Parts: sequence; C-alpha cells; structure tokens
Amino acid sequence: MKLQINGEVTDKPAVWWDKNSKFVKMIDQTKIPFQVEVFNCPTYRETVQAIKKMIIRGAPSIGAAAAYGLAQAVDEFWDNEDFEDQIRIAYDELLAARPTAVDLKNGLDFIKSDPLTPEGALNRAQFFADRIAEEGLKIGQIGKDLIKSGMNILTHCHTGALALVDNGSALSPIIQAWEEGKRFHVYVDETRPRFQGRMTAWELNQYGIDHTVICDSASGFFISQGNVDLVILGADRVARNGDIANKIGTYNLALISHYHDIPFYTAFPSSTFDSSTPTGKDIEIEQRDSLEVKQALGYSKILNENHVVSLYTENIKFNNPAFDITPNKFITGYITPHGILDKAELEDIMLNL
Amino acid sequence: MKLQINGEVTDKPAVWWDKNSKFVKMIDQTKIPFQVEVFNCPTYRETVQAIKKMIIRGAPSIGAAAAYGLAQAVDEFWDNEDFEDQIRIAYDELLAARPTAVDLKNGLDFIKSDPLTPEGALNRAQFFADRIAEEGLKIGQIGKDLIKSGMNILTHCHTGALALVDNGSALSPIIQAWEEGKRFHVYVDETRPRFQGRMTAWELNQYGIDHTVICDSASGFFISQGNVDLVILGADRVARNGDIANKIGTYNLALISHYHDIPFYTAFPSSTFDSSTPTGKDIEIEQRDSLEVKQALGYSKILNENHVVSLYTENIKFNNPAFDITPNKFITGYITPHGILDKAELEDIMLNL
Repeated sequence: MKLQINGEVTDKPAVWWDKNSKFVKMIDQTKIPFQVEVFNCPTYRETVQAIKKMIIRGAPSIGAAAAYGLAQAVDEFWDNEDFEDQIRIAYDELLAARPTAVDLKNGLDFIKSDPLTPEGALNRAQFFADRIAEEGLKIGQIGKDLIKSGMNILTHCHTGALALVDNGSALSPIIQAWEEGKRFHVYVDETRPRFQGRMTAWELNQYGIDHTVICDSASGFFISQGNVDLVILGADRVARNGDIANKIGTYNLALISHYHDIPFYTAFPSSTFDSSTPTGKDIEIEQRDSLEVKQALGYSKILNENHVVSLYTENIKFNNPAFDITPNKFITGYITPHGILDKAELEDIMLNL
Repeated sequence: MKLQINGEVTDKPAVWWDKNSKFVKMIDQTKIPFQVEVFNCPTYRETVQAIKKMIIRGAPSIGAAAAYGLAQAVDEFWDNEDFEDQIRIAYDELLAARPTAVDLKNGLDFIKSDPLTPEGALNRAQFFADRIAEEGLKIGQIGKDLIKSGMNILTHCHTGALALVDNGSALSPIIQAWEEGKRFHVYVDETRPRFQGRMTAWELNQYGIDHTVICDSASGFFISQGNVDLVILGADRVARNGDIANKIGTYNLALISHYHDIPFYTAFPSSTFDSSTPTGKDIEIEQRDSLEVKQALGYSKILNENHVVSLYTENIKFNNPAFDITPNKFITGYITPHGILDKAELEDIMLNL
C-alpha cells in the first residue's frame, strides 16, 4: 500500500503479522482518514475485539485478520494440555466477531485445513492474506477494461487497499484504469452510518482520481439525470446463486441501477465466495449498535483532535442493519480473479474451486 | 405548536410577526432538537438570511417567513420616495433565498396581489401563514384514514409543525391517527445531509409515537423484507402534472416503493402547488454548500454544547443537490386539504384555485 498522510507514505498492508512481537498489527481504520495509526493485537483476544470494533474493515481484510488471529492462538496455546479446546474457543470467538463477512470463516477454515503447528498456521495465514492482495491486483487487471475515459462511475462503501489487505476490490479496476491514462469521474457514496466514503475519497485522492462525495440518497438523482454510466462496488458475502450481501444501501443502488439500465458490477476475491450458502435469503444480516447512527466521529478544528458528537437527542431509537442482500437479477456481472463472470459461471467456479 | 424541550412547552408557531418589535421571529431549526431558541429578524434582510441559512425550513414555513419578510419591507420603506424600487429589491432577494420551495414565491405573490400598505401586507402575511397551519390540520384529518393499527410507515425529511408553520404536512395524519388511538410504528429516514430525521424523531417523541430512525440507504432493506406498509412524505414544489420536488432521497424511496408495490403518498398544503410549472423537468434543483455534507453539527457531551466536526479530510470535493424530482408515476396519491387526489384531480384543483 502506498497511501500517505501528512507526507508520510505507509508501506504496510491493512493487516500483518509482526515476527518479533508476535502481534497482529493493522492500520486503525477508525482513525482513517484523519490519522494513520497502527493498532496492536498482542493476543488473539485483541484481534477479536479489533474485528468487532471495526478497527479492521472490509470482508477480505477481516478474513486475513481472523486467519492471523487463529495463528496467534495456535502459537499461544501450542504447549498447553487443552490445546484443542483453546483453539476451538478461539475459532468460535473469531468467527462470531462479525457475522456477515464470509471471508472470516474462510480464513479460519483455511488455517484449520492442515494439521495445526505454530509455524504452519502462521504460514497459512500469511499465504491467505497474500493471496487476497494478489487477487485484488488481478481484479483490477480484469475489471479495468469496463472503464472508459469520460465515464461517470458510482461506488459505495470502501473497497480499497485497506479493505482487501492490499490493492482493493472495486477500487482496483478504477485505480488501474486511471494509471493507464484513462480519465473519468467517480461519485463516492458517503456510506452511512460509518462514512466509509471518506476512506474511499481519501484513497482516490492519493492517486489524483477525480471524484465527488455524495449523500447515499442522492444516487437516484444522478442516475436518473443520466450522469452515471457504471456502478462498481464490493461484496461481503457471495451466495452460490450470485446474490450478494454488501454494505447497507447496496440494494437501493442496485434496484435503481436496474430500473435505469445502468451496468452494475460487484468485485471481490475468492475469499468472499460462499459456496455453502445457496441464496441471499440464507445470509444472516448483522445488526450493529445504534451509536453508529446516533453519533458521528469527525475531526474538530477547534479541539484539534478527533471528536464524537451526538446527532440526536436522548430517547430516540434506531435500527441499524449493517448489510443488505442484493439479488442476482440486479447484478450485471461479477468481477473476480477468475474473470468477469455471469451468475452461472460464478456458481460453476465456486463449486469447482 | 405544543412541542416541549427540557420540560418547557412552546406555544409558538414555526414563524410569527412580533407586533411590538416588528421583528419576524422564528424557532431556530438549526438548533432543534438540541435547543429551542427564537431567532429574531429585525428587518427583511435578516429574514432573507434566515431562509438562506435554513434557520427556517420546510417549504410552507419558508413561504410564511417570506410573506412576513415582504410585509417587513413594506413597513420599512413605506415612507420612502423609492418605495416601489425597494419593494422590488426586497421581493427579488426574498425570492432568491431558496430556489426550490414554491411556497416562497406563492407567499410573496400573495402579499403583492393587493395594493401594498403596511397594515394590509401584514394582514395578508398573517392570513397566508394561518391558512398553511389550518391546512395542515385538514391534511391530517383527511390523511389519517390511510393509517391502520399495526402498520409500519416510512417517512423522509421533516414534515412536522416546524415545517408547516404549525400542525405539519406528512406528520399531521400520523399524529392524528395516533391521537385517535391507532398504534403503529414509523421508520424515520435520518435524511442526510442535514439530519432532518432528528427533528421528525424529536417531534414524534413529543406524542409518544413509536418510531426508529434509520439510515436513508436502509429503506430498501426494510421495504424488501416486507416491513413497510406505507410511505408518506411532504413536497417542496408540486408541478401541474403531479411531479414533485422534495428533499434529496425522495426519488430513491419512490422508485423502490413503486417496485415493491408499497403505497407512496405525498402531503402538502395549497401553498406548495405550482400551477405555472408544467412538469418536474421544469423545476430548478438547488445546489447547496459542500459543508452541509462535509461537516456535521451535533451535541458534544464533553463540551456540553453544540459542536461541528468535519467528517472528511481537506481537498475532498462534494456534490450536494438539496432536492430531487419524483415523477407522478411513482406517486399513489396526493394528500391535500382538498382531499386525497390523483394526478388528474390535483391538476384540476390547481387550475381552478
């Protein structure tokens, strides 16, 4: 990752294993874009908390963090008599940290698919994380041809390097098309409640990619005026039939794009495949804390630091589903490391991986 | 209005004329729901600024404020030699304060429709404002039968007493149905960028009406799950063919409701009729300041006062259309003081008023 802030360039991925300390380390995404800070997880328990608290976000990055977390547990409990029990507990806690991102389960199961040893688990976690980042590059190479100069592209949530260990999913084709010399404009949904659009805007700014941030509810206005040529976004879980779970608001955008005949693509690595889930209806939707909607974290110029304000008075109730399900009928194509697929091809690849 | 905060009940409408000071006074809607404060406009110039800065909001309340503002100008310049020039300037400045709410032009033209005198202009402004509030009551009486116990209703933006001088437009049927003893639940869109949903939630709380605030982009999730039975919202301008301009996000909601066969109603007083505009395509959409999206005003518990935080880093660009156009084909019916109308009836009434 070559993202910079205050002139400093980070050369780190979204999450990594530090050999000396045996800590899992990650860029603290709750601080982005205001500060770039490293968050340390000394044991798997802190890794669980980091996933829960969205210090690490983006389904593939979550998957890599969980894989590293399980490797941490293997290392910690290796000499214990109750090693297997401890690993079972660690697995369950990591799995429960976020319910929707299937990459989390895929990461954990990948670690467990071979006999567990500290070195073996770590190597597998490293391999899992590296493969995600490499697949991000491939997604970009494969998807960039969908983008033509002069286009207006709309994206939702954050699908850049931080979300995908490195390189990005939906942002990868956008970045690679721009680096090839194509010139276009990106509408960035601000993505309430957690404003992941500010991470997307910040990341696009690193490459000088022309963009404007819009309110999520303004998408229909721009689409209906003929100002959007292409929608690309990520996925948190892809069912076998091609239905996807993705950040809340994806369904609205997909339905509106469908109605207006705007091509709608979702981009994701293999870690987001969920071949064991037949359709979107079988996906559990995570309900998150009301405080995500009620409060906003921003930067206070007066205080010269990050500050949380309450957007609402007391005694107001909220309903905060973190994801929604978009049916395959609204999806033009799936941008994967295996090519741009239709739903039949996607299912075929999932079942034969 | 019988809204209370910190135990104090306000008996004031959204905007009024103070006979002693000759000030136009209004509840400062930029402070709601955190504080109830009166904002004073000593001359029409401050009234213009109050409209521009959204201290007063809601198309009908804006119309009433503009009518009072023009009456202020008539009073101020009555003895001047260049009275007519000054009134023309005041009219133009008031008209330009917000481009979309047609109530503004209707209020100004209502003042000018008789020969101008200070007392006459003031009486007409008072009549215009009172009529809006009375129509709000009628809208409630007429619309409340659409609401059944057990329903889930979804609304967008703020359409309560503060938006309509008094009594409300889309909130009026909801409040009256509740006061009749019907029991239901209201989903309140938070309504980015200015979080008008917090005013709606605060106002619903005054009546004990069951509700939850949701992110604007979550509407499709609840609708697609069969959890919404009825959508009611307001309008900022209604074209002759029944197309409406309303708060950004209305189009998304209308299209999604249409796709899922959910009844979609818009409620508004006569001041929102725009018989001179044939269709929604002829309505100018107001672009507002990027800061509305970039920053959030909330309450800081640490500072114990309202505080503005920046949600984005510097050098990010924004596009902030304040309204969108919803075509008549997505609208089930128009809740007006003249009845619940279809588009043909609406046009007929507009042309014969």
